[in-house]
Parts: sequence; C-alpha cells; structure tokens
Amino acid sequence: MCIPEPKTIWWDEGLWLIDQTQLPLKLVPLKIESIRQLVAAIKSLSVRGAPALGAAGAYSIALAAERSHATNAFDMIAELEMAADMIRNSRPTAINLSWGVDRALQAARGGESTEEIREAALRSAEGIAEEDIRVNRAIGKNGAKLLEDGDTILTHCNAGRLACVGWGTALGVVRSAVEAGKKIEVYACETRPLHQGSRLTAWELAEDKIPVTLICESMSGSLMRRGKIDKVIVGADRITRDVVFNKIGTYNHAVLAKHHKIPFYVAAPLSTFDRIYGEEDITIEERDPEEICTLAGVRLAPLGINVYNPAFDATPLELVSALITEKGVFRPPLMPPV
Amino acid sequence: MCIPEPKTIWWDEGLWLIDQTQLPLKLVPLKIESIRQLVAAIKSLSVRGAPALGAAGAYSIALAAERSHATNAFDMIAELEMAADMIRNSRPTAINLSWGVDRALQAARGGESTEEIREAALRSAEGIAEEDIRVNRAIGKNGAKLLEDGDTILTHCNAGRLACVGWGTALGVVRSAVEAGKKIEVYACETRPLHQGSRLTAWELAEDKIPVTLICESMSGSLMRRGKIDKVIVGADRITRDVVFNKIGTYNHAVLAKHHKIPFYVAAPLSTFDRIYGEEDITIEERDPEEICTLAGVRLAPLGINVYNPAFDATPLELVSALITEKGVFRPPLMPPV
Repeated sequence: MCIPEPKTIWWDEGLWLIDQTQLPLKLVPLKIESIRQLVAAIKSLSVRGAPALGAAGAYSIALAAERSHATNAFDMIAELEMAADMIRNSRPTAINLSWGVDRALQAARGGESTEEIREAALRSAEGIAEEDIRVNRAIGKNGAKLLEDGDTILTHCNAGRLACVGWGTALGVVRSAVEAGKKIEVYACETRPLHQGSRLTAWELAEDKIPVTLICESMSGSLMRRGKIDKVIVGADRITRDVVFNKIGTYNHAVLAKHHKIPFYVAAPLSTFDRIYGEEDITIEERDPEEICTLAGVRLAPLGINVYNPAFDATPLELVSALITEKGVFRPPLMPPV
Repeated sequence: MCIPEPKTIWWDEGLWLIDQTQLPLKLVPLKIESIRQLVAAIKSLSVRGAPALGAAGAYSIALAAERSHATNAFDMIAELEMAADMIRNSRPTAINLSWGVDRALQAARGGESTEEIREAALRSAEGIAEEDIRVNRAIGKNGAKLLEDGDTILTHCNAGRLACVGWGTALGVVRSAVEAGKKIEVYACETRPLHQGSRLTAWELAEDKIPVTLICESMSGSLMRRGKIDKVIVGADRITRDVVFNKIGTYNHAVLAKHHKIPFYVAAPLSTFDRIYGEEDITIEERDPEEICTLAGVRLAPLGINVYNPAFDATPLELVSALITEKGVFRPPLMPPV
C-alpha cells in the first residue's frame, strides 16, 4: 500500500502551516506573517505535536530573520533572540520547540551579515523539517517490526503526520507496518478537551484508508478487558530519565495496559529526549478552563465552576514496554545513546 | 450544614420531571403527557440514573392508567402491559427501570376496576419515589462512615440527586458526610460523551456549596498518582453476581484506583442488584455515534468515521472495595442479602 506524504509545515516564500483547528471540516493552509501570529498559532494549537513544534521553532527564527529590518548582524541576532524567547515560552512543556529554536538560532549566529544570517536560519529550519520526515520514517521502520499482521492498536491524541512535518511517530509506526503489507486496525481516543484524536487522528488515518474506530478515552479499559487491543502506541512531548510527558490521559492508558498485560509503546525522535532534567523539574502546562466548560459557544458546565485542565501527564518509564526511536527500540531502563 | 431536598421526578396532577438535557443552563420542569413522550425522555436522557429510572418506570404505569380510555379492568391491564414493554425496552441495561415497571404493574393487577387500577398504580409509584429518598438517605448514612474529614473524592458521571428522586447514591454519601460535619471535596469527571459530570454533578454539588473541581476523565490517573484522591465513589446501573455495570469509564477508574491502592466504592440501592443474571447475560447498550461525532451541531470527527459508543462498562467485583447499600456496607465477595 502506498501512502502519500503531505506536509504539516513548510516554507514557500514565507512560512506556511496547516491550520489544525479547522480540521476535520477544512484543510486550510495558513500563511504566518509574524512571530506574534506564530505564537498565537502555537497557543491555539493550529500547529501542535512535538516534532512539528520542533520545525515550527526553527522556522520561527527564519521568519524573524526574514522580517527583520536590522541593518547589521549584531542587531539582527538580538532580534532573533527576542523572537526565540517569545516562541520558547508559548508552550513550555514541549521540549522540541526550544530544541528547534536553539538549533536554528545557533546556525544563524554563524552568519556574518544579515543576508548570511537569513540564509543560515532558513537552511537550518529546512534541514530540520527534512530530517523530521527521515527520522519519522526510521521510527516507523523500527516500530513496525513490533507489530504483527492483524494487530489492533490503541492510540491517544495525535502522534501522526499532523503532529510532525510528515509521516508521524506513533501513527508513523502504523503507516510503516501497513506499507510493509501488515493488516493493522486502530482505535483512536477522541482526546478531551481538544479532540485531537477525533479531529486529527481519525481524519488522517481515514485519509490513508487505514481502518480506524473512534472512541472516548474512557472506553480504553473495557476494550482491553475484552481482548480487543493488542498494543498501545503513543507519542511523547518530552522524555526525561524517569517519565514520559505526553497528552493528558496517556498515563491512564499505560496503567490499564499494564493491568491487562498489553505492550505500551512510546514512539518519539531523539529530539524529544531531555537528558538534563527529571520529572520534578518540569512544570506541566495548565490550559484555559473554558476548553472543558464550553464547546463552540455551548456551555457544558455551570458558570464559575472550578476546573483543573493540565495539558500533559507523566508516565513512569517502568510502565513503558519500549521506546521506539530513529536509532532503534529501547526497553527501559535502557535508553537511546545521546 | 443543611442541604435542601428538591425532587427529580414527581406527580402533581400528572407526571413531571426535571429535563436534565437543559442543565446546567436551565432548570426546566417537563410535564409528561404520554408513554411515547416518556420513552423519548428516557432515550434522550432527560431523565436518567438508575434510581430515577426506577421511579420513572413505576410512574409510567400510573401515567398509562391515567391516560387509558379502557372501560374495564381487563382491557386496562392489557394496555398497561403494552406500555410496560415500551418502557422496559427504552434502556435495556438499566435494571431499575424494569424493576419499577414491574412493581407498579404488579400493584395495578390487584385492582378490580379501572378506578382501583389507577389508584393502585399511582400509590405504588408514589411509594417507590418516597422509598427512593429514604433508601438514599440510608445509603448516605452507611457510606458516610467510610469517609474521613478532609477526604477528596473522585466521582464519575452523575450518581447524585438528579440520578434519583432525591439525595443521590454516590453523591448522597458525600452529602451525608458533609451533613455530619465532615469537610469533603469532590473531583467530578465530565463524562463523555454526554457530560453528565460537568452538566449535572458539578451543577448539583455547586448548588449545595460542596467544593467541586471539574476534570476530564483522562485526568483521574495523574491525580491519583500525585496523591490527590482519597477515595473513588460511583453509582451503578446494574450489579450482577460478578460485575458492576455503570457509566462507560467506571472500569478505567477502578483499575487506576487498584493500581494506586485507593478504595473504590459503589453506592447503590438493593433495587440495582440483579440476583439472576451474570455479566455474560447482559447486553451493553450502544448509543448513537453522533453523540461522539458532533456537539451542538459542531462536527468533531470526519464524516462517515467508524465509532464505538457503549453506554456502560463492567467492573469485576474484585476491583470493588465495598458496595454501599441501604442495608449496610458489603465487601465483595460478600453481597447484601436478598
């Protein structure tokens, strides 16, 4: 089976991305004209997913350089550093965002003129974007060996091509297995409160004609209990020495998988690994209560109610059967080399 | 603390209920004019919750008798039996519904004239409704002993007064503990796809000034892992010799509670206990896929996507720390006497 390869973020006389808030209704390319607009797009999740945020971080430096009126290298680098700070702070839990920012900023610093800086930043960002697809292809190939013909996979949130520049991490593993001729079915958890599962995962798998069934995350346990799930595969926003930070709800599935003796896999590029910090050092982003209390202007909860709305949770590595990376499959406590 | 006692379903020159689909925005009493309208109200969850459905089942017989044009007892009982079948089939997993129908029908059969049948059916239904509040008060009193001052409770769906004629089962336990002077906080899971947690549980606890924080069910595990939950209390739609059927998602919380060594309690009246059948005999109701795919006319998933939307799941009694009933607290495999 041949699977097409559209991109989620790209440069074409300026920065473009798929506005993911419009899916599944409309596939809308969005031109990004300023760092302020990119920050808003990141916060509203028009672009989201760890690997895609890595590319967005890098492209943000290229965009800042392109838009700069600085007349010398020193002033331009100062502007890029200000843009870098704004972008890094837009979603602090996502390690790839600052990883991408830092890589492009590092490249830009090598430029001796404003023109060289512009070129270096864009070249770095384009390199990161191309590398993302190569890396995801490698993750897919390594992970596909873990899947058997006829497997049914549970996934949470969207770790697909929409979370990356292309191909996907968790869904990249599924795609690579399907491309290798295996019959794979997927249960996609809708992923409250922002529905990345129903809006994005269900959409992109259906586009690729990979059989997908949409469920609420509350249904994962009873499916496992009835023997309907062979493996769980999710992505990651940050992997420290002790835990995997990923979309809120991941930890529930991990505990349920352990209880039912089902393999629980995390597919992520090396850029997601945090070699410095541990769980206790990382602050989990809390998002607007209104994400849970309203939908499309309809009120789902009483006015003024207390709400707790963390974007991520932390799954201890002891619950992870294997980390699927571009450098191979690592069973914790084994970790990929730096 | 004194807590008021409004009713969810009552008779006042006809059958009335709170239209729960309008909450939390509006508290709307709905007059039920026909069995057909009652079936629609049950299917749309205008009235829902195991104990409230028991009363609704009984009142349905009183309503059918009131509306009947039969001129003799024989014809009237035949009409009531037809109404009973329609009501029983409207939500087949809920045992209390047929329990209430059968009790009122049995009472009606004792009438020798149409007038006697009308009176007997209504008297039976009113008795069931009053008994429900007495029973829930007893459940609350028995369960409150399990709660300590300062406890934080996780609950799922709505097992509150809106699920009953009044007071509530799981939330009745919370109310009784609060009334006894204990400080109790509640995390309410929003409960996809129909949001009984955010629309109903959050609303009724806030009305009673009991501290409540709304979460998505996907957040339960990470709260438990961080020591924020002392006990889980849920209601039940049917308790067989082997499992508790309750709102989809209950099983996930039960496994998570076990993993974190947190007590998992089920609060339910004896009318919820099925002494005849086991898990394998009960068909779990599957509901309309559109409940997951759309909200207030907004599409959350691609058109034509496969969806699995069971209304309930089954939690093995091994995962239940105790069953809280009006006859006391029973730790499985101990079960309440018939």
